[in-house]
Amino acid sequence: MATITGPIDVSALRARLDRASAAAERAGVDALLISPGSDLRYLIGAGGDSFERLTCLALPVVGTPTLVVPKLEQPGYAGIPTDELGVEVVTWVDGEDPYALVKAAIKGNRTAVADMMSALHTIKLGNAVGGPQSLAGPIIRELRMRKDASEIAALRKAGQAIDRVHARMGEFLRVGRTERDIAKDIAAAIVEEGHTVADFVIVGSGPNGASPHHRDSERVVEAGEVVVIDIGGPVAEGYNSDSTRTYVMGEPKHDDVWDTYAVLQAAQQAAVEAVKPGVTCEQIDEVAREVITDAGFGEYFVHRTGHGIGLDVHEEPYIVSGNALPLEAGMAFSVEPGVYLPGRWGARIEDIVVATEDGVESFNNRPHELVVL
Amino acid sequence: MATITGPIDVSALRARLDRASAAAERAGVDALLISPGSDLRYLIGAGGDSFERLTCLALPVVGTPTLVVPKLEQPGYAGIPTDELGVEVVTWVDGEDPYALVKAAIKGNRTAVADMMSALHTIKLGNAVGGPQSLAGPIIRELRMRKDASEIAALRKAGQAIDRVHARMGEFLRVGRTERDIAKDIAAAIVEEGHTVADFVIVGSGPNGASPHHRDSERVVEAGEVVVIDIGGPVAEGYNSDSTRTYVMGEPKHDDVWDTYAVLQAAQQAAVEAVKPGVTCEQIDEVAREVITDAGFGEYFVHRTGHGIGLDVHEEPYIVSGNALPLEAGMAFSVEPGVYLPGRWGARIEDIVVATEDGVESFNNRPHELVVL
Repeated sequence: MATITGPIDVSALRARLDRASAAAERAGVDALLISPGSDLRYLIGAGGDSFERLTCLALPVVGTPTLVVPKLEQPGYAGIPTDELGVEVVTWVDGEDPYALVKAAIKGNRTAVADMMSALHTIKLGNAVGGPQSLAGPIIRELRMRKDASEIAALRKAGQAIDRVHARMGEFLRVGRTERDIAKDIAAAIVEEGHTVADFVIVGSGPNGASPHHRDSERVVEAGEVVVIDIGGPVAEGYNSDSTRTYVMGEPKHDDVWDTYAVLQAAQQAAVEAVKPGVTCEQIDEVAREVITDAGFGEYFVHRTGHGIGLDVHEEPYIVSGNALPLEAGMAFSVEPGVYLPGRWGARIEDIVVATEDGVESFNNRPHELVVL
Repeated sequence: MATITGPIDVSALRARLDRASAAAERAGVDALLISPGSDLRYLIGAGGDSFERLTCLALPVVGTPTLVVPKLEQPGYAGIPTDELGVEVVTWVDGEDPYALVKAAIKGNRTAVADMMSALHTIKLGNAVGGPQSLAGPIIRELRMRKDASEIAALRKAGQAIDRVHARMGEFLRVGRTERDIAKDIAAAIVEEGHTVADFVIVGSGPNGASPHHRDSERVVEAGEVVVIDIGGPVAEGYNSDSTRTYVMGEPKHDDVWDTYAVLQAAQQAAVEAVKPGVTCEQIDEVAREVITDAGFGEYFVHRTGHGIGLDVHEEPYIVSGNALPLEAGMAFSVEPGVYLPGRWGARIEDIVVATEDGVESFNNRPHELVVL
């Protein structure tokens, strides 16, 4: 059942539907066909979660947006003000052909389908509509990466919620506990502090912190070890938090921790301060990378500097070498350089920030220093 | 990252690959293209979990099965004995074209893609291969609904695990607690008793039990109320449990509970006892429905009698009116009639059973009586 947990901003949603329709026309398609997922939630406020039975928002360039939905799943969309949004709802029951209903809701046969739509529906829609199919992802992400005021408010709320979890880290992260037990407690705190679920929890202690994709393990945290904590999840509005802080259990057992961490902190700060409209994504990456490389740690910073964030944890814009996209006010993304010393220890600092008219706002505001627990 | 948590039965997997290839040929396609999900897990033992980067098992009618996988996701498949399975592994890195690699791995251009494959990959594969695309689901499910010995063993293990949770229900289900708190404790017990995650927990107390799709709520359980508990999840091998029992908090507050429940219990027992090879799916549904209808409660049994189960919680065969499929030994499914009295109370009894050569084996063996707590 689709769940509506956040407030609905009707005017924001109407503007998105209009912009999506205009973007579809510019892309040379007759309609967008959007199945349940974050694109649907972006456009009408409910993401849905069906699979075998077709739910599809047909958003034509000419005509009325139409939500085709199984009768038995209609209650999940009861919170959507479809009348105010100008969206017609067409229900169907087992035995009827929902693909024909989508075809009837659009003019023309050039469609762009949501990237996440299953092949089950993609192929059946292709057969029903008959024209060329392309992907809606490139069209929708041009909209989604420019956040409006309600989205920025939701991301700010998510950032404050995850900051409260980091503020409580001393309750969970203690010498003698396993990474897994620590992760379970953090997951509970993520929900307690205002997220709907704990989407991910990384507890990387000692050498595990040097592996950026580590999640947790049965490893016991020992005195003097550096521990990377990377956590996040969605708030009721659907927008995600994602913040990393690095902790040390008393005095570090390795001699190089303080000096190396200071380089990382300087790199992260410089990259955040470089954010403003007109600067490109790859320039932000380069600012962070240059500080780390100049200090001799370039080979230990093994990933991009950041990723866009919103209804998905990872979305456009990516803060990575080769991405010449200029930042605009309303683009929100992570700034998360790291240093990973294989077999020894690792560290990462991650804030979610948004480009503003004249600079940057950070949604995460816990201290950036290495935190001694 | 794809995770391998269960044991790998090489001979069973080889047989599945061979049967899938033969079924593809009978269906008139040149290759199956299987993306991460339960179909992939069924065929090679690892389900994977990638999205943007293509992972695809190309299973041609003529030639070598080939797993195209991003280099950085290859470690997730390290546990798969690809050599013994006769599967070639081809890795790719960002900047290379994985769709061309799939095209190179097959002969001919008629492909059937996994139902769950995203449009992102479906459309790009369609453009790369150039021929007609159909769905692999109808081909693969003919195989998946006939369980082999290793699958039956895994379902039996899952059934025993969920039975242990029902045996502990008195620890969790108590008067004065909310459905949600009860559900959280049950979810923890589902993991403690041997599942990898708690996939679903339904706690339907009093009138909430009369709504088959209810999950949980902040409602407080009161003395005399009937409570439906429907729970399950996967064990390490990936196969799922799913079992419902109905409980009552002391003496029932409604006069009709004992007699009505006796009808339901008789219906469920009769349907299980009717299972044997050659009986059709709809006949099993009819057996349960007839008992309930004859007692005057037909209008309160508002759903099908059952669903197949395996790597997915819901899969073929469906035990429903209109499904004339004859049962065969190895078909596993739920038998779960219910009676739902709107605004008052509801009850359901659910076992997972498998058709055997000469009858039926039930994987769930907790008492079927209404359990007084």
